[in-house]
Amino acid sequence: MKVFPYLDVESEVAEEGAKGVTVRWLITKDIGAKNFAMRYFEIDVDGYTPLHSHPWEHEVFILEGEGEVMGGGESKQIMPGDVVFIPPNEMHQFKNTGKKKLKFLCLIPYLDAQK
Amino acid sequence: MKVFPYLDVESEVAEEGAKGVTVRWLITKDIGAKNFAMRYFEIDVDGYTPLHSHPWEHEVFILEGEGEVMGGGESKQIMPGDVVFIPPNEMHQFKNTGKKKLKFLCLIPYLDAQK
Repeated sequence: MKVFPYLDVESEVAEEGAKGVTVRWLITKDIGAKNFAMRYFEIDVDGYTPLHSHPWEHEVFILEGEGEVMGGGESKQIMPGDVVFIPPNEMHQFKNTGKKKLKFLCLIPYLDAQK
Repeated sequence: MKVFPYLDVESEVAEEGAKGVTVRWLITKDIGAKNFAMRYFEIDVDGYTPLHSHPWEHEVFILEGEGEVMGGGESKQIMPGDVVFIPPNEMHQFKNTGKKKLKFLCLIPYLDAQK
Protein backbone atom coordinates (compact mmCIF):
# COMPACT_ATOMS: atom_id res chain seq x y z
CA MET A 1 0.00 0.00 0.00
CA LYS A 2 0.89 3.67 -0.24
CA VAL A 3 0.03 6.20 2.49
CA PHE A 4 0.99 9.87 2.20
CA PRO A 5 -0.37 13.35 2.99
CA TYR A 6 -1.96 15.06 0.00
CA LEU A 7 0.42 17.97 0.49
CA ASP A 8 3.32 15.69 -0.49
CA VAL A 9 2.05 15.73 -4.06
CA GLU A 10 3.16 18.65 -6.19
CA SER A 11 0.54 21.22 -7.13
CA GLU A 12 0.31 22.01 -10.85
CA VAL A 13 -1.40 24.94 -12.53
CA ALA A 14 -4.44 23.63 -14.40
CA GLU A 15 -5.12 23.65 -18.08
CA GLU A 16 -5.88 26.51 -20.43
CA GLY A 17 -9.29 28.08 -20.04
CA ALA A 18 -9.05 27.90 -16.26
CA LYS A 19 -8.46 30.80 -13.87
CA GLY A 20 -6.75 30.33 -10.50
CA VAL A 21 -6.94 26.53 -10.55
CA THR A 22 -4.31 24.10 -9.30
CA VAL A 23 -4.41 20.33 -9.22
CA ARG A 24 -2.53 17.60 -7.37
CA TRP A 25 -2.67 14.17 -9.00
CA LEU A 26 -2.85 12.12 -5.79
CA ILE A 27 -3.40 8.57 -7.09
CA THR A 28 -2.42 7.66 -10.65
CA LYS A 29 -1.14 4.85 -12.83
CA ASP A 30 2.34 5.70 -11.55
CA ILE A 31 1.53 4.11 -8.20
CA GLY A 32 -0.45 1.24 -9.69
CA ALA A 33 -3.98 2.61 -10.06
CA LYS A 34 -5.12 1.09 -13.33
CA ASN A 35 -8.82 2.00 -13.29
CA PHE A 36 -9.23 5.58 -12.07
CA ALA A 37 -7.27 8.58 -10.80
CA MET A 38 -7.79 10.76 -7.70
CA ARG A 39 -7.06 14.46 -8.08
CA TYR A 40 -7.23 17.32 -5.52
CA PHE A 41 -8.34 20.68 -6.94
CA GLU A 42 -8.05 24.16 -5.45
CA ILE A 43 -9.78 27.14 -7.02
CA ASP A 44 -8.92 30.66 -5.91
CA VAL A 45 -11.59 33.21 -5.06
CA ASP A 46 -13.25 34.23 -8.37
CA GLY A 47 -11.49 31.40 -10.18
CA TYR A 48 -13.07 28.74 -12.39
CA THR A 49 -12.37 25.62 -14.38
CA PRO A 50 -12.95 25.68 -18.15
CA LEU A 51 -16.49 25.26 -19.44
CA HIS A 52 -15.91 22.08 -21.42
CA SER A 53 -16.92 18.49 -21.98
CA HIS A 54 -15.06 15.23 -22.53
CA PRO A 55 -15.87 11.53 -22.88
CA TRP A 56 -15.20 10.69 -19.22
CA GLU A 57 -17.23 11.30 -16.08
CA HIS A 58 -16.30 13.21 -12.91
CA GLU A 59 -16.90 11.97 -9.38
CA VAL A 60 -16.46 14.93 -7.04
CA PHE A 61 -16.54 15.50 -3.27
CA ILE A 62 -16.41 19.08 -1.97
CA LEU A 63 -13.96 19.54 0.91
CA GLU A 64 -13.78 23.28 1.64
CA GLY A 65 -15.17 26.57 0.41
CA GLU A 66 -18.23 27.45 -1.59
CA GLY A 67 -18.99 27.65 -5.26
CA GLU A 68 -21.17 26.82 -8.15
CA VAL A 69 -21.19 23.95 -10.57
CA MET A 70 -22.74 24.17 -14.00
CA GLY A 71 -23.66 21.01 -15.83
CA GLY A 72 -26.18 19.99 -18.43
CA GLY A 73 -27.53 23.53 -18.65
CA GLU A 74 -28.28 24.01 -14.95
CA SER A 75 -26.33 25.61 -12.13
CA LYS A 76 -26.17 24.52 -8.49
CA GLN A 77 -24.51 25.83 -5.35
CA ILE A 78 -21.85 23.59 -3.77
CA MET A 79 -20.50 23.46 -0.25
CA PRO A 80 -18.43 21.05 1.89
CA GLY A 81 -19.93 17.57 2.01
CA ASP A 82 -21.61 17.92 -1.36
CA VAL A 83 -21.25 15.17 -3.93
CA VAL A 84 -21.22 15.92 -7.67
CA PHE A 85 -21.52 13.46 -10.53
CA ILE A 86 -20.91 14.81 -14.05
CA PRO A 87 -21.70 12.18 -16.69
CA PRO A 88 -19.54 11.72 -19.78
CA ASN A 89 -19.87 14.33 -22.54
CA GLU A 90 -21.81 16.84 -20.43
CA MET A 91 -20.68 20.49 -20.59
CA HIS A 92 -19.61 21.55 -17.09
CA GLN A 93 -17.73 24.14 -15.09
CA PHE A 94 -16.77 24.72 -11.44
CA LYS A 95 -16.58 28.27 -10.05
CA ASN A 96 -15.48 29.65 -6.72
CA THR A 97 -18.17 32.10 -5.61
CA GLY A 98 -17.09 32.19 -1.97
CA LYS A 99 -14.58 34.15 0.09
CA LYS A 100 -11.91 31.46 0.49
CA LYS A 101 -10.41 28.72 -1.62
CA LEU A 102 -12.75 26.09 -3.03
CA LYS A 103 -11.21 22.65 -2.54
CA PHE A 104 -12.51 19.34 -3.84
CA LEU A 105 -11.55 15.86 -4.91
CA CYS A 106 -12.29 15.01 -8.54
CA LEU A 107 -11.83 11.46 -9.76
CA ILE A 108 -11.77 10.31 -13.35
CA PRO A 109 -11.58 6.88 -15.00
CA TYR A 110 -8.71 5.64 -17.06
CA LEU A 111 -10.65 4.81 -20.16
CA ASP A 112 -9.53 1.77 -22.13
CA ALA A 113 -7.66 3.86 -24.65
CA GLN A 114 -5.65 5.47 -21.85
CA LYS A 115 -4.71 2.32 -19.92
CA MET B 1 -25.37 16.14 -13.46
CA LYS B 2 -26.28 15.17 -9.93
CA VAL B 3 -25.50 17.34 -6.90
CA PHE B 4 -26.48 16.34 -3.37
CA PRO B 5 -25.18 16.44 0.21
CA TYR B 6 -23.54 13.19 1.31
CA LEU B 7 -25.98 13.07 4.23
CA ASP B 8 -28.84 12.54 1.78
CA VAL B 9 -27.53 9.03 1.14
CA GLU B 10 -28.63 6.35 3.56
CA SER B 11 -26.02 4.95 5.92
CA GLU B 12 -25.76 1.14 5.96
CA VAL B 13 -24.06 -1.06 8.53
CA ALA B 14 -20.99 -2.59 6.93
CA GLU B 15 -20.28 -6.22 6.22
CA GLU B 16 -19.51 -9.08 8.56
CA GLY B 17 -16.11 -8.96 10.22
CA ALA B 18 -16.40 -5.21 10.79
CA LYS B 19 -17.03 -3.45 14.09
CA GLY B 20 -18.79 -0.08 14.28
CA VAL B 21 -18.56 0.63 10.56
CA THR B 22 -21.18 2.31 8.38
CA VAL B 23 -21.03 3.14 4.70
CA ARG B 24 -22.92 5.46 2.36
CA TRP B 25 -22.73 4.54 -1.34
CA LEU B 26 -22.57 8.09 -2.70
CA ILE B 27 -21.96 7.51 -6.40
CA THR B 28 -22.88 4.21 -8.02
CA LYS B 29 -24.10 2.61 -11.22
CA ASP B 30 -27.61 3.65 -10.17
CA ILE B 31 -26.85 7.26 -11.07
CA GLY B 32 -24.81 6.39 -14.15
CA ALA B 33 -21.29 5.79 -12.84
CA LYS B 34 -20.09 2.90 -14.96
CA ASN B 35 -16.42 2.79 -14.01
CA PHE B 36 -16.04 3.28 -10.25
CA ALA B 37 -18.04 3.92 -7.09
CA MET B 38 -17.59 6.53 -4.34
CA ARG B 39 -18.38 5.41 -0.78
CA TYR B 40 -18.25 7.37 2.51
CA PHE B 41 -17.15 5.33 5.54
CA GLU B 42 -17.49 6.10 9.22
CA ILE B 43 -15.77 4.00 11.87
CA ASP B 44 -16.68 4.38 15.53
CA VAL B 45 -14.04 4.74 18.23
CA ASP B 46 -12.34 1.31 18.60
CA GLY B 47 -14.06 0.07 15.45
CA TYR B 48 -12.44 -1.54 12.43
CA THR B 49 -13.08 -2.89 8.96
CA PRO B 50 -12.45 -6.59 8.29
CA LEU B 51 -8.90 -7.75 7.69
CA HIS B 52 -9.40 -9.06 4.17
CA SER B 53 -8.36 -8.89 0.55
CA HIS B 54 -10.18 -8.82 -2.79
CA PRO B 55 -9.33 -8.43 -6.48
CA TRP B 56 -10.05 -4.67 -6.59
CA GLU B 57 -8.06 -1.69 -5.35
CA HIS B 58 -9.04 1.02 -2.85
CA GLU B 59 -8.48 4.73 -3.36
CA VAL B 60 -8.97 6.45 0.00
CA PHE B 61 -8.96 10.03 1.28
CA ILE B 62 -9.13 10.60 5.05
CA LEU B 63 -11.63 13.32 6.04
CA GLU B 64 -11.84 13.29 9.83
CA GLY B 65 -10.47 11.45 12.84
CA GLU B 66 -7.39 9.34 13.35
CA GLY B 67 -6.60 5.72 12.81
CA GLU B 68 -4.34 3.08 11.49
CA VAL B 69 -4.29 1.27 8.19
CA MET B 70 -2.67 -2.11 7.76
CA GLY B 71 -1.72 -3.27 4.29
CA GLY B 72 0.85 -5.61 2.82
CA GLY B 73 2.15 -6.50 6.27
CA GLU B 74 2.86 -2.97 7.44
CA SER B 75 0.87 -0.55 9.57
CA LYS B 76 0.66 3.24 9.21
CA GLN B 77 -1.05 6.05 11.09
CA ILE B 78 -3.69 8.01 9.18
CA MET B 79 -5.11 11.48 9.73
CA PRO B 80 -7.17 14.02 7.76
CA GLY B 81 -5.62 14.84 4.40
CA ASP B 82 -3.91 11.48 4.09
CA VAL B 83 -4.22 9.49 0.89
CA VAL B 84 -4.20 5.68 0.89
CA PHE B 85 -3.86 3.36 -2.08
CA ILE B 86 -4.44 -0.35 -1.46
CA PRO B 87 -3.57 -2.42 -4.55
CA PRO B 88 -5.71 -5.37 -5.63
CA ASN B 89 -5.37 -8.59 -3.61
CA GLU B 90 -3.47 -7.00 -0.71
CA MET B 91 -4.63 -7.88 2.80
CA HIS B 92 -5.75 -4.67 4.52
CA GLN B 93 -7.69 -3.24 7.45
CA PHE B 94 -8.72 0.21 8.71
CA LYS B 95 -8.93 0.88 12.47
CA ASN B 96 -10.10 3.87 14.46
CA THR B 97 -7.44 4.49 17.11
CA GLY B 98 -8.57 8.03 17.90
CA LYS B 99 -11.13 9.63 20.19
CA LYS B 100 -13.78 10.53 17.61
CA LYS B 101 -15.22 8.98 14.47
CA LEU B 102 -12.84 8.16 11.67
CA LYS B 103 -14.35 9.29 8.36
CA PHE B 104 -13.01 8.67 4.89
CA LEU B 105 -13.92 8.30 1.25
CA CYS B 106 -13.12 4.91 -0.27
CA LEU B 107 -13.52 4.42 -4.01
CA ILE B 108 -13.53 1.12 -5.85
CA PRO B 109 -13.66 0.17 -9.53
CA TYR B 110 -16.50 -1.64 -11.17
CA LEU B 111 -14.50 -4.50 -12.58
CA ASP B 112 -15.56 -5.85 -15.97
CA ALA B 113 -17.42 -8.73 -14.39
CA GLN B 114 -19.46 -6.29 -12.29
CA LYS B 115 -20.41 -3.82 -15.02
